[in-house]
Amino acid sequence: MRRDERKPNQIRDVVIERNFIKHAEGSVLITVGDTKVICTATVEEKVPPFLRGSGQGWITAEYSMLPRATPSRNQREATKGKVSGRTMEIQRLIGRALRSVVDLRGLGERTIWLDCDVIQADGGTRTASITGAFVAMADAMNLLAQKGSLEKIPLTDYLAAVSVGVVEGTPVLDLNYIEDSSAKVDMNVVMTGQGQFVEIQGTGEDTPFSPDELQSMLSLAKEGIHDLIRKQKEALGEVAGRIAPVE
Amino acid sequence: MRRDERKPNQIRDVVIERNFIKHAEGSVLITVGDTKVICTATVEEKVPPFLRGSGQGWITAEYSMLPRATPSRNQREATKGKVSGRTMEIQRLIGRALRSVVDLRGLGERTIWLDCDVIQADGGTRTASITGAFVAMADAMNLLAQKGSLEKIPLTDYLAAVSVGVVEGTPVLDLNYIEDSSAKVDMNVVMTGQGQFVEIQGTGEDTPFSPDELQSMLSLAKEGIHDLIRKQKEALGEVAGRIAPVE
Amino acid sequence: MRRDERKPNQIRDVVIERNFIKHAEGSVLITVGDTKVICTATVEEKVPPFLRGSGQGWITAEYSMLPRATPSRNQREATKGKVSGRTMEIQRLIGRALRSVVDLRGLGERTIWLDCDVIQADGGTRTASITGAFVAMADAMNLLAQKGSLEKIPLTDYLAAVSVGVVEGTPVLDLNYIEDSSAKVDMNVVMTGQGQFVEIQGTGEDTPFSPDELQSMLSLAKEGIHDLIRKQKEALGEVAGRIAPVE
Amino acid sequence: MRRDERKPNQIRDVVIERNFIKHAEGSVLITVGDTKVICTATVEEKVPPFLRGSGQGWITAEYSMLPRATPSRNQREATKGKVSGRTMEIQRLIGRALRSVVDLRGLGERTIWLDCDVIQADGGTRTASITGAFVAMADAMNLLAQKGSLEKIPLTDYLAAVSVGVVEGTPVLDLNYIEDSSAKVDMNVVMTGQGQFVEIQGTGEDTPFSPDELQSMLSLAKEGIHDLIRKQKEALGEVAGRIAPVE
Amino acid sequence: MRRDERKPNQIRDVVIERNFIKHAEGSVLITVGDTKVICTATVEEKVPPFLRGSGQGWITAEYSMLPRATPSRNQREATKGKVSGRTMEIQRLIGRALRSVVDLRGLGERTIWLDCDVIQADGGTRTASITGAFVAMADAMNLLAQKGSLEKIPLTDYLAAVSVGVVEGTPVLDLNYIEDSSAKVDMNVVMTGQGQFVEIQGTGEDTPFSPDELQSMLSLAKEGIHDLIRKQKEALGEVAGRIAPVE
Amino acid sequence: MRRDERKPNQIRDVVIERNFIKHAEGSVLITVGDTKVICTATVEEKVPPFLRGSGQGWITAEYSMLPRATPSRNQREATKGKVSGRTMEIQRLIGRALRSVVDLRGLGERTIWLDCDVIQADGGTRTASITGAFVAMADAMNLLAQKGSLEKIPLTDYLAAVSVGVVEGTPVLDLNYIEDSSAKVDMNVVMTGQGQFVEIQGTGEDTPFSPDELQSMLSLAKEGIHDLIRKQKEALGEVAGRIAPVE
Repeated sequence: MRRDERKPNQIRDVVIERNFIKHAEGSVLITVGDTKVICTATVEEKVPPFLRGSGQGWITAEYSMLPRATPSRNQREATKGKVSGRTMEIQRLIGRALRSVVDLRGLGERTIWLDCDVIQADGGTRTASITGAFVAMADAMNLLAQKGSLEKIPLTDYLAAVSVGVVEGTPVLDLNYIEDSSAKVDMNVVMTGQGQFVEIQGTGEDTPFSPDELQSMLSLAKEGIHDLIRKQKEALGEVAGRIAPVE
Repeated sequence: MRRDERKPNQIRDVVIERNFIKHAEGSVLITVGDTKVICTATVEEKVPPFLRGSGQGWITAEYSMLPRATPSRNQREATKGKVSGRTMEIQRLIGRALRSVVDLRGLGERTIWLDCDVIQADGGTRTASITGAFVAMADAMNLLAQKGSLEKIPLTDYLAAVSVGVVEGTPVLDLNYIEDSSAKVDMNVVMTGQGQFVEIQGTGEDTPFSPDELQSMLSLAKEGIHDLIRKQKEALGEVAGRIAPVE
Repeated sequence: MRRDERKPNQIRDVVIERNFIKHAEGSVLITVGDTKVICTATVEEKVPPFLRGSGQGWITAEYSMLPRATPSRNQREATKGKVSGRTMEIQRLIGRALRSVVDLRGLGERTIWLDCDVIQADGGTRTASITGAFVAMADAMNLLAQKGSLEKIPLTDYLAAVSVGVVEGTPVLDLNYIEDSSAKVDMNVVMTGQGQFVEIQGTGEDTPFSPDELQSMLSLAKEGIHDLIRKQKEALGEVAGRIAPVE
Repeated sequence: MRRDERKPNQIRDVVIERNFIKHAEGSVLITVGDTKVICTATVEEKVPPFLRGSGQGWITAEYSMLPRATPSRNQREATKGKVSGRTMEIQRLIGRALRSVVDLRGLGERTIWLDCDVIQADGGTRTASITGAFVAMADAMNLLAQKGSLEKIPLTDYLAAVSVGVVEGTPVLDLNYIEDSSAKVDMNVVMTGQGQFVEIQGTGEDTPFSPDELQSMLSLAKEGIHDLIRKQKEALGEVAGRIAPVE
Repeated sequence: MRRDERKPNQIRDVVIERNFIKHAEGSVLITVGDTKVICTATVEEKVPPFLRGSGQGWITAEYSMLPRATPSRNQREATKGKVSGRTMEIQRLIGRALRSVVDLRGLGERTIWLDCDVIQADGGTRTASITGAFVAMADAMNLLAQKGSLEKIPLTDYLAAVSVGVVEGTPVLDLNYIEDSSAKVDMNVVMTGQGQFVEIQGTGEDTPFSPDELQSMLSLAKEGIHDLIRKQKEALGEVAGRIAPVE
Repeated sequence: MRRDERKPNQIRDVVIERNFIKHAEGSVLITVGDTKVICTATVEEKVPPFLRGSGQGWITAEYSMLPRATPSRNQREATKGKVSGRTMEIQRLIGRALRSVVDLRGLGERTIWLDCDVIQADGGTRTASITGAFVAMADAMNLLAQKGSLEKIPLTDYLAAVSVGVVEGTPVLDLNYIEDSSAKVDMNVVMTGQGQFVEIQGTGEDTPFSPDELQSMLSLAKEGIHDLIRKQKEALGEVAGRIAPVE
């Protein structure tokens, strides 16, 4: 039993609220336990210079936290005048992960910006961002399809992300902040609806981890991703039907 | 009659939701029409260098917009590497306005940071920030008082802010984005519960305005502030009773 | 009687010296008491991107202080690597104010840059900058007209600025640094020759101010602006005759 | 057979040249195929603020490439005025990885800076940096031990890093630049002498990868790390004998 | 004969106006032909970290140009967010040159800041800055001596600077902007009252120069420095008498 | 006799190793005593904006030190977010010096970037950079000539640089770090194969220097440059034959 009474293989309560910001082409408030992230999708009818004339689109992401998303206040990166290494790592991860399930040629020469703004943090903000941003992106693509700008939603699969770790010797799924602070290993896994890996990032800073611990964590991640993709489908409702079928 | 069917002297619907972010000492989601701002108050047990040893506290504010708070996406200031002139003006205004009703000596040598993050914008974001931040600040002060760190809430009065302008020849109260775009004059007024002025900032960029127009706008502002302070009192509930009485 | 023996409604001695810098299209050294500002006007034959092809011109301003313009030395903003919030507020104010009396269409697709560099400061540097920059701008426009690039000087009115405040309970005009430091209210007013308001920025940081005090200050400002515009006309000499008549 | 005639499980030629820079406490030129990195270790007798008084030391790393380490010239980050997201990710990775085998308490309140400067790049620069920096760090620690500042070398294990990937359908070890460019999956693995994982970072940006591919890559990585640690021991010579025994 | 009718060995008209800015401890407007520089000296009662506790003082300089000091407008370095290489070179030069004639131990643990702000440029701004800053510095030191903070003015000699070059085959002294633009060699020389060299910076970018040309330029520089130091003494009046005697 | 047993007019051992970095069009590791600099030449088929359409090419240089090139570690300029004044001075000097012997019209509209990265420093890094960069540049030009992009190597002369100074009263050639630290005068001289001056930069910060000392240093510099150019020719081998003959 974990502190918050979850089983080792149990994710936190997840709520995905669509159309949260009226201006955006897609927007979601994703709540995972006490972690809350606003994910918006913006369609821009151009691509970065390296793709101009290529017939391909692009997906990019930005990530930020409100100063008081955390127990103590963090200085704004705008005030500091630069984006931290941690933020850059996370936004590169989110963009890369989402691109893996997008048919960029099918998207055409346009960019979808995913903005993930954490308004309250309790562990797992980067994985919640990926899971929520997928839904916002699907909504933006659906809007393009409904307006006739796209023939169909250019997604090749579903995609979600979850953290796993080893806490007090036990591999557990979807760590909250307290668990994360005391975890020996911290691993983020991004997987598709088909059960393929998109990203594995595991770190054993304080103590290295064994091949057996790795295998247990990968199994838990697979379970968690399965649950999260079910939540995404429920939230997307009839839009889910227009995304490439997933077994 | 205005486009959204309001009368010239009518403010938009206002909702002030307290305790919106669990980590902050005070936090509010203020909704004014379609404008939504998260205001958090953070207590820091130290003051800026120029006040050390003075026995006085400090109030400071930061303001930001999510990239997609607006109809088209704005680049993040953290990405640009600097805070814009507009943002600096606004956060200086918010801090200055709030300080005017705080007994800084009564606060003691601590700082309250007010973070105003606009998640959806439809005009009047700076005035909504001031009105909402006042409530978050009062909550943070109340918490300090309840913990025994303060004898009483060091507020000398209520404080709210509203915009006024001249749209199609008519002075109107609390402009939304469409009205603001076509206004000949744009003025922000910050007033106390006692009806004293704290800030007046009026600009007639395209066309200068007459002394008569100024007087009409000041009257409307007074009405609007009165309504907003009533909303603040309702939201604060029993905490309102612990703030210096206002007629 | 004030410390420097002026009456409450009396501005300081004003000297406007034209053609102060040989390279600039317009240049002025304005002296207001002990405040001295070099204002230069530069004509650039292009406009910012948002105006290209619009047929309209643009007026923009920059403001700075020499490090030792003040009693103690200020670090240069170039050395700090960024422009302060105060500087940004002031340069936005100067540009906005000057644009209000310019027929931007009449100016054609060109930009006039106004650089206001304070070489000695004793209060009222932003208002002296506006008053002086108006003259430098008129000179630059006159030069364009003389060269045949403009049919006439595209000014719709005169423009000047002055500060007002409440010092030791008395509303006074054109505060010097000592008065400004002890003022309860500090207000800057920009007005046209016709007596219309262009900007009102009043702040009662330490103590809010009453509607009556506001009215007294507005009256003083009107008197001061009247005196300053007379000084501008005297300085401009025959060029004054080519500016739209003002009663 | 691979383009450069290596077998899938074969690393490139590795040369580790110690004492490459005369001023540094430890310094190495590591050559892995055509990738060359200068790694220096600097001992600083203080720790970052968050560790002051803790009795613990710190290991931190910086990474950079000479502008012409690559086929086309890269602009310097100093000239751009900021460190890229890629550089930040890599230097965070190097520092984290090295810390995992250091007894920070045994190191005492001092910092070891590892500077990894790529002078020629042909794939695998971050893994070569980790493998080389380990040796430079061991040398710096040995120097401290010889001077009597440390009782013994505070290392708990050896540490090396290698890349693995799937190229043209085949899992391969230690990819050079050409292979890396065409790889479907790119994974970096950091392991200890005991065969424990310290970091796993795998990305399938273009195509997700299967659990089977993951297992094959992990096996290859284990072989590669084994070979690299043998090279480290050979290079360290008698210093190797003073590091915690590894089977 | 030169374009402005000067002889090859003739400097331009020089005017040194002391006490130009009322707040500064020393301040000068130096006019050399059409080049005008405001030099202020600020005394700060502390030294940079590397001199704390050393008993020595420090002299440092900053240099800037108003945007319209030149025929076309230059963007402000504060707006660009960084100081250019040219500016850094010049301010390092000015500081280094002035320090060469200061008895830093005699100055005690205080810093004198010399700010050189070019308000109008016509060649030779860096040499005019040095020549003018020397006088402002002497005035600030004299003030310290008069207040009893210093026993005597801690200057070991006079110091001035001048440019020399080869224009249309002829070595000439004190180049104005037009001459400078067409000069084959550009050299700045800083010398003491005793005729010792403090700095020689000669550049033959377009065409290298011969040893003979070098000797001719050095002779001209000596003459020019002699004239400039005479001007400094005249300007300093009775203060000149308190500076170490120079033949 | 000097500390390292050299005669006053003796340069340190110089080794110029060509083709040090495989990717660059020209690359050299120059070793001067214990100073080691990697110089690479990169050909870019475009010129800066101010030369577009002029038919002329451009030569530009960048300079940096590895953090541990020096006895104590220097913070990276990329980490600081800006290039120091010293670095800017040096890279401007290197570029200017090299341009003096290049027929920019003969080079055509292309840029050669010279990157000088000091990997170990023991005095004279800027002069070693110039001497080494000349060889890397010649190699890059030779490559262009061999590919038929240039008719001939567009060099008008050889070029090298050396430092001279006055140490313990004696003028000496090619100072190492220890000598440099105790030198009364520090002068860098850049000369052509024909014995013409390109740059002279001499500084007597602590003590001014006499005309006689200047002449002695210039003589030593001439000898040193002669020796260095001989080393360049030896290193260039048959490429030397294709450079304009030098007596």
